[in-house]
Amino acid sequence: MRLNDIEYPKDLKRVPVGELQAIADELRDYIIDTLATHPGHLASSLGAVELAVALHYVFDTPDDKLVWDVGHQAYAHKILTGRREAFHTIRTYGGISGFPKMAESEYDAFGTGHSSTSISAALGMATASKLQGNTQRSHIAVIGDGALSGGEAFEALNNVGDSKANLLVILNDNGISIDKAVGGLNGYLTRITSSRRYNKLKEQVWRKLDGSDGGRRHDHSIGFFQKLTSTAKTAALGGSNLFESLGIRYFGPVDGHDLPQLVDMLQRLKELEGPKLLHIVTTKGKGLRQAEQNPIAYHAPGRYDIRTGNQVSTQDTDTPPKYQEVFGRTIIELAEQNPAIVGITPAMATGCSLNLMMEQMPDRTFDVGIAEQHAVTFAAGLAAGGMLPFCNIYSSFAQRAYDQMIHDVALQRLPVVICLDRAGLVGDDGPTHHGLFDLAALRPIPNLTICAPMDEHELRNMMFTAQLPDGGPWVIRYPRGLSEHADWQSPFERVEVGRGRCLCEGNGEVAIVTLGTVGNDALRVARETGAAVYDMRFLKPMDTGLLDKIASKGYRRIVTVEDGVRAGGFGEAVVDYFAEHHPAVAANVKILAIPDEFVTHGPVAQLKHDCHIDAEAIARALAI
Amino acid sequence: MRLNDIEYPKDLKRVPVGELQAIADELRDYIIDTLATHPGHLASSLGAVELAVALHYVFDTPDDKLVWDVGHQAYAHKILTGRREAFHTIRTYGGISGFPKMAESEYDAFGTGHSSTSISAALGMATASKLQGNTQRSHIAVIGDGALSGGEAFEALNNVGDSKANLLVILNDNGISIDKAVGGLNGYLTRITSSRRYNKLKEQVWRKLDGSDGGRRHDHSIGFFQKLTSTAKTAALGGSNLFESLGIRYFGPVDGHDLPQLVDMLQRLKELEGPKLLHIVTTKGKGLRQAEQNPIAYHAPGRYDIRTGNQVSTQDTDTPPKYQEVFGRTIIELAEQNPAIVGITPAMATGCSLNLMMEQMPDRTFDVGIAEQHAVTFAAGLAAGGMLPFCNIYSSFAQRAYDQMIHDVALQRLPVVICLDRAGLVGDDGPTHHGLFDLAALRPIPNLTICAPMDEHELRNMMFTAQLPDGGPWVIRYPRGLSEHADWQSPFERVEVGRGRCLCEGNGEVAIVTLGTVGNDALRVARETGAAVYDMRFLKPMDTGLLDKIASKGYRRIVTVEDGVRAGGFGEAVVDYFAEHHPAVAANVKILAIPDEFVTHGPVAQLKHDCHIDAEAIARALAI
Repeated sequence: MRLNDIEYPKDLKRVPVGELQAIADELRDYIIDTLATHPGHLASSLGAVELAVALHYVFDTPDDKLVWDVGHQAYAHKILTGRREAFHTIRTYGGISGFPKMAESEYDAFGTGHSSTSISAALGMATASKLQGNTQRSHIAVIGDGALSGGEAFEALNNVGDSKANLLVILNDNGISIDKAVGGLNGYLTRITSSRRYNKLKEQVWRKLDGSDGGRRHDHSIGFFQKLTSTAKTAALGGSNLFESLGIRYFGPVDGHDLPQLVDMLQRLKELEGPKLLHIVTTKGKGLRQAEQNPIAYHAPGRYDIRTGNQVSTQDTDTPPKYQEVFGRTIIELAEQNPAIVGITPAMATGCSLNLMMEQMPDRTFDVGIAEQHAVTFAAGLAAGGMLPFCNIYSSFAQRAYDQMIHDVALQRLPVVICLDRAGLVGDDGPTHHGLFDLAALRPIPNLTICAPMDEHELRNMMFTAQLPDGGPWVIRYPRGLSEHADWQSPFERVEVGRGRCLCEGNGEVAIVTLGTVGNDALRVARETGAAVYDMRFLKPMDTGLLDKIASKGYRRIVTVEDGVRAGGFGEAVVDYFAEHHPAVAANVKILAIPDEFVTHGPVAQLKHDCHIDAEAIARALAI
Repeated sequence: MRLNDIEYPKDLKRVPVGELQAIADELRDYIIDTLATHPGHLASSLGAVELAVALHYVFDTPDDKLVWDVGHQAYAHKILTGRREAFHTIRTYGGISGFPKMAESEYDAFGTGHSSTSISAALGMATASKLQGNTQRSHIAVIGDGALSGGEAFEALNNVGDSKANLLVILNDNGISIDKAVGGLNGYLTRITSSRRYNKLKEQVWRKLDGSDGGRRHDHSIGFFQKLTSTAKTAALGGSNLFESLGIRYFGPVDGHDLPQLVDMLQRLKELEGPKLLHIVTTKGKGLRQAEQNPIAYHAPGRYDIRTGNQVSTQDTDTPPKYQEVFGRTIIELAEQNPAIVGITPAMATGCSLNLMMEQMPDRTFDVGIAEQHAVTFAAGLAAGGMLPFCNIYSSFAQRAYDQMIHDVALQRLPVVICLDRAGLVGDDGPTHHGLFDLAALRPIPNLTICAPMDEHELRNMMFTAQLPDGGPWVIRYPRGLSEHADWQSPFERVEVGRGRCLCEGNGEVAIVTLGTVGNDALRVARETGAAVYDMRFLKPMDTGLLDKIASKGYRRIVTVEDGVRAGGFGEAVVDYFAEHHPAVAANVKILAIPDEFVTHGPVAQLKHDCHIDAEAIARALAI
């Protein structure tokens, strides 16, 4: 049997257990080969190959419910469940999603993307099965050690212990959380895993089983587990087990790349009713030397050379830097001048480039783990203590900290600068990761200053202005990817708060009013059409003086453009103002914004086209 | 020394330790006497009297930073820090806040209201002190066992262990979380507290200390603690300690009403650098028999008889029921007919009346603890498993689950019915608890049906309609307090989704367009002014057909009314539609909504008046 013969788990089940590793090896090669030219989340998926094989071998998916937390480690799962042929289309426009997606396959029991939801979701399904009288169905949440630091996972664990639900939590522990895992929990898992006494005991138990437990009898397994959990293991671990404190039976740690052992363990656990947790230890990037050695760089490495495994550099020296790099270098410049500045990231240090500051100023930079809520309240606490925190969060992940921004930052008017990275359309990661709700969700919050730079100079100046005295709480949102100019390192200039600017006067017939980097599209359109372009810069406070001026010009048509949702967003704010103060002008406004639908994955240019916010759409709207 | 002699902690510090209990007793009586006629959060504050006394006795507030999680247990703290005279104004308009508030007192180191933020905030302050070179300052987070189930608290604990910050977490364990505490954590704390072996050991250690430790020497204390934590205690507890698993030194449990012991313990811990947790056990409602026996009813009991302690009933039999009761009784009726329905509450079973269903259908009702994120994803998991969950969350607490509503419910179009209780202005609890952001925050989310009933009949019918087949995700928002009619139990009628209604035609001159219970104010105004009244019922999908009809009527003035923020809310949605489709009409619209400021505490009628959304403001807006 070869990988090519396996379309669905039923095919996999016909493979003798001794030959499973060969399938896993082929699967791993298939992922490495495909992603070399079709970029995706490499290292996480390589670490979960044996787990995916073992799970589909042992459990009866899709009737048994399998939830992959975050989901970017589920590539082997996708290949084994009807998507081998389509796998090369992953994360491409019209192709399969980079994450589990209910609409894509019945094997994707629950869609994921954001971290730490899997236990809650699987507990929900397990509870549903129990209520429906189905005691046979298994429900499995696979969660990484990084994702376990997210508060929602703990909220769920706190409920798992009390439930009698048929739930298996698999803790896939690789010590990595995109960046290196942090926090007390990580230290705890390391101590468990490296406990010599415990591992010695475990070996003995396993050896003993190999001889005596051929029958896989249910009762026997239960006896085995009870013994392992309640006495011997507790003693071996110095008695300390966090999960058992919460009332969840804990098993492990086991080697997550040892397929026969994994299969054996899962078969036993399948027979064991009620909630339980299996701790497996895996190597992120397993099977590709460079990825094993540098799992952070190979988390989503882009293209790499299939023979050498080396990443293919795509960035020219003459191209502009990414906004991320501009943020990362600018915060260091500012922190060198202003000793109150500190940097905070919830587990995205490399992604947002705060790793640069972390290297230079380790005491003033905090990676708090996947913990957006804590990140924001921690920042508020720092601000209450006289510091000036820059808290960098991806826009869509910041949805997790919505309440904290209102309740801890804005209500108390604390000087926290929230930098929303990955705002707008993010491209290949799709609907779970687009940062489209931030403008509309934050605009109603009193006391916030909300701005969006049009280019890297503006980003620098906004960051500079936000840290000046008496700035109060700020939000600065900017997109993923390349900025506009290669010569980005200009001296800082204070931006007048709540003041927009006219980028070009045009011929007076039509105008484009923009917020953020979509202003660059507007400028291109203006060159061809003679439109005026106004970059409002601030969503809040909005420059009503500039709006009055625009109203006075008698434009035949005013087009507003934003890369966020229309409902409650920038365009509506403009229309609301015009309707109240210049009603005749309001009639001439056309809002270009993301329509009321979730946006799929694909190249940003394509998605902008589909959402009618690209240059072509602007030109069309002006022409009406 | 009497309570009357104590204005600030400096006065308290002059009391001999042996006389502290007398002060605490007076304080407790003062709270009981005052709240009998000035309602507030009674039971939690009674449980924390000795703790507040001990903390201000031992620590140097306000230089030492003290954060009260949730904050409704901080009344003794308020009385001891300059607010004894003002205490009777608590939660009244213009009076002091029911929660700690930075702007109110320098002793309120951080404002609270929502649960589970204190450790993050105190860790932020402790980190600030460390960065500023202040190694003497203490930072204290007081958190209840209920609040500890909130994920943010765990995110913070996960960071506390790694930090070297000077942080003391006090776990105030009373086994109650407004309703009875739930979850594995609660079971764990009970096991610790009731461990006979552990308590016996503790007694021995304390006895020994009483004889030998008169000097309170720093070194001696450290030795004492090291011994207690690292060997003896671990063994006594069966070795299992959740907090020490996370790298936090754990002390306790101690009796939180034994003032000399508390003071002694805090003095020792003050000398001990780094992060540590003290577990104290208290009785919620301590000192008032009825409150001790029924801490749920006496959480915020309203008025009670000062002599007997019995609650004073304020509700007539002829008055309409509260919306809460209508929800609680209606979900039972629906669940009796539809076996897929389940009910979920994050720790507000009594507050939202889901306790009624819990009594009748315990298997189908879930109190998940203070865990809004989990509540929503758990609901999504139940829905994915074929159930139809009603998840009831207070509007302002639902801000905690914003991401989960987007990512787990709406994106997957799962049939979860989110009932937002306490929407709009809540009154006495003030800015942390008003439910003003829900409409604006949720309107941009695709796939949601969002509605607001005008009265209890509409609430019942919307709940009925939401659970019909193929309903997708719903949000139903309704306020705190009394509904409109005493005869509320009408037969269910299907509401047409996205369809508003004309409540009265009026004389054709002016119109009021409303969403939710503000429609009742509009009707009263219409009786006097001859205005037409349109109840849109659905924020989304909005009834554009009805808007077209309204536009066709040629009203001189159209006033929209909502009890939510203006930015991005209902009125803006109406204006956006008119501006695009009936520009001349848009010019006649006046939006009445909550302005761009946080709203203080006070009677709802007063706050509506201040925010210009009451009947008077409607009449005024029509007259312009």
